[in-house]
Amino acid sequence: MNPKYIARCAQIAMLLEVSATPKPGNVDRDHDFADLRYEHFLASAIGVGHVFERAAVNDNKVGSLIREAVEESAKWNGGRNTHFGTFLLLVPLIVAAGKGDVRAVNDVVRNTTVEDAIELYKAFKCVDVYLEDIDDLNVKDATSVDEIRRRGLTLYDIIQISAEHDGIAQEWVRDFSRTLAGARMLAEKAKEMSMNDAIVHSYLALLAERPDTLVQKKFGSSVAEEVGRKASAVLKERNIDAIRRFDDELIRRKINPGTTADIVAASLFVHLLEEYDEIA
Amino acid sequence: MNPKYIARCAQIAMLLEVSATPKPGNVDRDHDFADLRYEHFLASAIGVGHVFERAAVNDNKVGSLIREAVEESAKWNGGRNTHFGTFLLLVPLIVAAGKGDVRAVNDVVRNTTVEDAIELYKAFKCVDVYLEDIDDLNVKDATSVDEIRRRGLTLYDIIQISAEHDGIAQEWVRDFSRTLAGARMLAEKAKEMSMNDAIVHSYLALLAERPDTLVQKKFGSSVAEEVGRKASAVLKERNIDAIRRFDDELIRRKINPGTTADIVAASLFVHLLEEYDEIA
Repeated sequence: MNPKYIARCAQIAMLLEVSATPKPGNVDRDHDFADLRYEHFLASAIGVGHVFERAAVNDNKVGSLIREAVEESAKWNGGRNTHFGTFLLLVPLIVAAGKGDVRAVNDVVRNTTVEDAIELYKAFKCVDVYLEDIDDLNVKDATSVDEIRRRGLTLYDIIQISAEHDGIAQEWVRDFSRTLAGARMLAEKAKEMSMNDAIVHSYLALLAERPDTLVQKKFGSSVAEEVGRKASAVLKERNIDAIRRFDDELIRRKINPGTTADIVAASLFVHLLEEYDEIA
Repeated sequence: MNPKYIARCAQIAMLLEVSATPKPGNVDRDHDFADLRYEHFLASAIGVGHVFERAAVNDNKVGSLIREAVEESAKWNGGRNTHFGTFLLLVPLIVAAGKGDVRAVNDVVRNTTVEDAIELYKAFKCVDVYLEDIDDLNVKDATSVDEIRRRGLTLYDIIQISAEHDGIAQEWVRDFSRTLAGARMLAEKAKEMSMNDAIVHSYLALLAERPDTLVQKKFGSSVAEEVGRKASAVLKERNIDAIRRFDDELIRRKINPGTTADIVAASLFVHLLEEYDEIA
């Protein structure tokens, strides 16, 4: 598969994800946060084009590719964290696609090295990531890198430690199963509704299925579960006004299910890669 | 200036232009046409990244770069014409920026060749362009190419023939003066309002200043002048509801001032190139 084609699909996935509206609680084409606006996401998706192309060619350096994506993104969006979680999912998927099979992403993440882990820690310095320390390895502490090297921890090892509390890390250790399920969901829904609506519905379905871990970290498990139940109820109503009211509520309470949005972006990438046609 | 930086500014200009809302009569983040949607514009801006990078490196081949941009864009938006006019402006500006001075764009367009003219005619075949024949050279007729070669017409010559009735061609022969005025306008307005609003106001100001030639071709001069007068009146009101009502009216009447939108995209490119900072 052509590396440019792969990279473009990943960039367009980022644009479609952030543009889909209403996407309850998150930035979309109709909703900015105070210091994080829709345009910052657009600019980030443009900025990372060449990093994605390199990832798709033959570059196995998952850690440094993620770091470079984070750095390039930050150059264009004023140093904000628009896509950290998204890059953690997209980069290994792009590398796998470049090797011929996006679904072989497991091999890519399991073959990461100690150097990849160190590069990820460098990426933490570029932008403000909402993250707990990984085990006793403070994500902002320079000595963590020495400790990673001393213990011989690979990037996969590091991510595995976070998997219990982090939905992105869970994808790494659980075969990107929700990402791939999301891609199937998008393909199904796109047959009967616009791509915008297919994205919104898939996002709600993923949110209903498992509590968003960013919400969990910020507001605790009971709020994350409440959000999941409400997403499920809204989906059953199949009513745009119900989705809008849910959106208004989350925005008012500043609850942003960012992990679920990251997974949707990754799902969109897999979906576009497999049946781009034209964006429906 | 770094070629990647130049290309990224041009791509982000395309995204900001199409996203700005309400942009009376045109596709924006809140308005699709029946077969031309916001997402098609997003995908097009992603698709042309590598063509813009080449244009920014050292490539003088303005005609083939425009053709390639049109082709790449069409690959990702299902063969639609989202940005033909925009590319006619952006490509020479990118080439000029790559040579060190975007404002030296005059030298770029005046030095185009017969081969450049032939390449443009090839681009007409890729997408459906709303264009009158240039002199007696039918834009859809393969024999026009032989005739261009026989008469030794350069791309600049061809564009010059269209300048009377075409606002994009006018930029080529009149020193890109409205594009550069638009860039100054954006810089001024961005100091006192959001980038979205600066784009909307600059668009209205350009529309008020001179009738849109796409509207002229489709609906005649009196409608184009009426649209200009209304844009001027709406701008004086400085009221978002007045802009929305004007938008509703043009959408209802299917009047899309596309040439003015193309010029705004080019103005945005020059503006971002000179003071990117972060998109305000």
